[in-house]
Amino acid sequence: MCRFLAYSGQPIFLDTLLIEPEASLVSQSHSARQAKTVVNGDGCGIGWYGARAEPGLYRGTLPAWSDANLASLCHQVEAGLFLAHVRSATSGEVSMANCHPFTAGRQLFMHNGQIGGYPAVRRAVESLIPDSLYAARRGNSDSEAIFLAAMGRDLENNPAGALAAILGICCRIQQENGIAEPLRFAAVVSDGENLHAFRWASDGKPPSLYWRRLDTGIAVASEPFGASGDDWTAVPEDCHMIVGREPDFRSFTVN
Amino acid sequence: MCRFLAYSGQPIFLDTLLIEPEASLVSQSHSARQAKTVVNGDGCGIGWYGARAEPGLYRGTLPAWSDANLASLCHQVEAGLFLAHVRSATSGEVSMANCHPFTAGRQLFMHNGQIGGYPAVRRAVESLIPDSLYAARRGNSDSEAIFLAAMGRDLENNPAGALAAILGICCRIQQENGIAEPLRFAAVVSDGENLHAFRWASDGKPPSLYWRRLDTGIAVASEPFGASGDDWTAVPEDCHMIVGREPDFRSFTVN
Amino acid sequence: MCRFLAYSGQPIFLDTLLIEPEASLVSQSHSARQAKTVVNGDGCGIGWYGARAEPGLYRGTLPAWSDANLASLCHQVEAGLFLAHVRSATSGEVSMANCHPFTAGRQLFMHNGQIGGYPAVRRAVESLIPDSLYAARRGNSDSEAIFLAAMGRDLENNPAGALAAILGICCRIQQENGIAEPLRFAAVVSDGENLHAFRWASDGKPPSLYWRRLDTGIAVASEPFGASGDDWTAVPEDCHMIVGREPDFRSFTVN
Amino acid sequence: MCRFLAYSGQPIFLDTLLIEPEASLVSQSHSARQAKTVVNGDGCGIGWYGARAEPGLYRGTLPAWSDANLASLCHQVEAGLFLAHVRSATSGEVSMANCHPFTAGRQLFMHNGQIGGYPAVRRAVESLIPDSLYAARRGNSDSEAIFLAAMGRDLENNPAGALAAILGICCRIQQENGIAEPLRFAAVVSDGENLHAFRWASDGKPPSLYWRRLDTGIAVASEPFGASGDDWTAVPEDCHMIVGREPDFRSFTVN
Repeated sequence: MCRFLAYSGQPIFLDTLLIEPEASLVSQSHSARQAKTVVNGDGCGIGWYGARAEPGLYRGTLPAWSDANLASLCHQVEAGLFLAHVRSATSGEVSMANCHPFTAGRQLFMHNGQIGGYPAVRRAVESLIPDSLYAARRGNSDSEAIFLAAMGRDLENNPAGALAAILGICCRIQQENGIAEPLRFAAVVSDGENLHAFRWASDGKPPSLYWRRLDTGIAVASEPFGASGDDWTAVPEDCHMIVGREPDFRSFTVN
Repeated sequence: MCRFLAYSGQPIFLDTLLIEPEASLVSQSHSARQAKTVVNGDGCGIGWYGARAEPGLYRGTLPAWSDANLASLCHQVEAGLFLAHVRSATSGEVSMANCHPFTAGRQLFMHNGQIGGYPAVRRAVESLIPDSLYAARRGNSDSEAIFLAAMGRDLENNPAGALAAILGICCRIQQENGIAEPLRFAAVVSDGENLHAFRWASDGKPPSLYWRRLDTGIAVASEPFGASGDDWTAVPEDCHMIVGREPDFRSFTVN
Repeated sequence: MCRFLAYSGQPIFLDTLLIEPEASLVSQSHSARQAKTVVNGDGCGIGWYGARAEPGLYRGTLPAWSDANLASLCHQVEAGLFLAHVRSATSGEVSMANCHPFTAGRQLFMHNGQIGGYPAVRRAVESLIPDSLYAARRGNSDSEAIFLAAMGRDLENNPAGALAAILGICCRIQQENGIAEPLRFAAVVSDGENLHAFRWASDGKPPSLYWRRLDTGIAVASEPFGASGDDWTAVPEDCHMIVGREPDFRSFTVN
Repeated sequence: MCRFLAYSGQPIFLDTLLIEPEASLVSQSHSARQAKTVVNGDGCGIGWYGARAEPGLYRGTLPAWSDANLASLCHQVEAGLFLAHVRSATSGEVSMANCHPFTAGRQLFMHNGQIGGYPAVRRAVESLIPDSLYAARRGNSDSEAIFLAAMGRDLENNPAGALAAILGICCRIQQENGIAEPLRFAAVVSDGENLHAFRWASDGKPPSLYWRRLDTGIAVASEPFGASGDDWTAVPEDCHMIVGREPDFRSFTVN
């Protein structure tokens, strides 16, 4: 189980959401030291959209709680759209190349969940990556493979369609290989303009996903955080949430 | 709270004790992912005595559970006397220089506990390090400072006397600086011949320390591990345990 | 021999100076692979002043040429005052805590050069660090010790006076310890408003230091870089250069 | 250009060949700081055969010259057959998964050279990896792909045949993709019993490879090292050298 957070709205410093709140992403990872939660100690990463054509990206293999560079960046960087992720490795070793978010062009992508039985289907899943992006494959996680495969299905212009198509094929690959373990998928993708969140699972038990209206925008997170009175709302199952000024919830169907 | 294990006896492969047993040191650190225990994700290290004059030393900043080099070394290295440590940082950042064990000449030293209020007394504690070893100071933890200071008090030939002297001075430094927090100390030191374990605290609440007779020798560990029926015995408070063929328990007094 | 660059002027993206020019700091480090120059493969760092009270800081132990995070940050961060450093270790091992720039409050400091015979005088030099900053000592390099010691001599308000005082004391410490090796010092310090560069050595052979007027501001660097026609000017020996709109060169005397 | 060394003979401590000799592998990498040679600062690794069924493996991303763990291991480990490698990245980023040697079961493999135009043919080359080993693919270098693909051609029992087959296919893949750059290949493979070295290139310009008789055995290295009078002999082009008590040189043909 990884944890993640995404934000869209007026520009804010990243630490406003990632470090300062009670049980925020970095302190969640940190509080894990006191064993209150699952530990996300297998690396971390942030991606944000600034003044450049390509998003900024920082990824590291240390636990978020001991990464001084991460803390400094969260304190310095101000952005109106950013993604942050702390990893608990399921498939793929601990390495920078396996840390989220993943990026290609303007796209940022991060994921919580897994393709059950991935080692047995890895080759077939990687075969979905288009030739033009195959050289961009750096790590060996299922998450990066899903992202690059979806890029080949026009993730930029049709994120829901691209992801639904790839997830559907992955499920069929699992079936063909006799894998009973489910495919569970909570993810966020952005092109710097729009933020899309997805929650789905082949067994009807997707990873948790919540959203909340802030004074400055909207946050989507794998778990609620902040003061106890904060009003987080669960994103429904089988949902594609488009985060604009107002959230737009659509049905997300994988065939 | 760090965790550690030391072994003295017939040569065995390190993974026999560090990886294979249920709840062993590396899997303890690993099981922390499932939040069953405090997390020791701030680096790890092993030291062992082989054919060379100086002990072998491996230290890394990744959590033990994701350190492939550590796993390979524990599988390969066979030793009749070794120390292993997984860190949960209290003083000193996450860096190789702050990982245990520490070494100087033939000595290996590792520690669980802390000098309360260390930042305020660090300078005074470091002033105890002899000139000849000052250049060997690599990190900024209290543990390394205690070790190097004790080296200046003949730790090689009189480990109990050297540590008692340094711990006593540290307590007085704390008092002079108005620090109410205790000094807690569980530690293991060796010169490759003898293994010495210590358990003491200024407030009568020392970190836990256990020992157990194995078929091949004697293990000392911060917590019991292995099958539930295994017969671990707590090392008494205020104790200096000399681990030979038979353990020898002596009173350890700090004035 | 480390290499460094500092810039003051209108805000620019860091890669404009650190990556894009021919023989720029990162590519200098990279070209070292082709063995054209001394290798600066012992870590790197950047510090910059943004919207926050404290400067941003990124430091890493990989060679600059293989640090993807460094490349992304240089591409994203825009600043009117920044420092960058690639290290070739002389004293102090390769660790994040020994990477430049060093920071305390609003100050950033980086250094090229060394205190000759540092291991023998390290204790005496560290004794110059004021109590209030002693806990901030993270690594074991001479550069960090000079910085923290100078902070205790009012580096914020009187950088030339503070550094001259500390360098003078360091020279006397070297003499008292019978060290014939020189103290060589090229350094940059800033509080976010002003940028101060220094070039001095006890033997009259200070590390190289150059400056150049750009369209947007002024750059100071350990070596010229960029197109061959670029007009870099050597900073004189025994000089304190204040980099404002116009550079101001003052005599820098160490007694 | 990477550098490597392999040894077969009576058990010796690794530092005897890797650290102590003038211009040895680690000091070669170190001397690179003085810019005498190409820099091999993109990670390092050693593999050795000990008492266990699987070989020992240590790999790290720091330059060999600053890797304290590597130095300690070379000092401690005694082996009658070992491989060592310092990397200068050509394909594949700097990561532990891209460091040599690579291992599978009892096999160790390391490589100097490259498949020209690798990004364009990576997918086709990776398609040669058998299903059973595909999950073992950790990095994204050409070297690991060649190794795993050759494992699928019975590298264990017929190293020359397996490598010749894979190199031949790789050349055809290059041709089919219109790549004019050559495939250059110097490599060592072992199963713990026999040591095989290969030197070949599609353009007749293979990487250098030398061998030398020592008092205790035979060393194979990418470059001569040690005292100037040492009598290194070049391994011929298109050669498969079997290193036993006496070296056996065979023609190595790739069709």
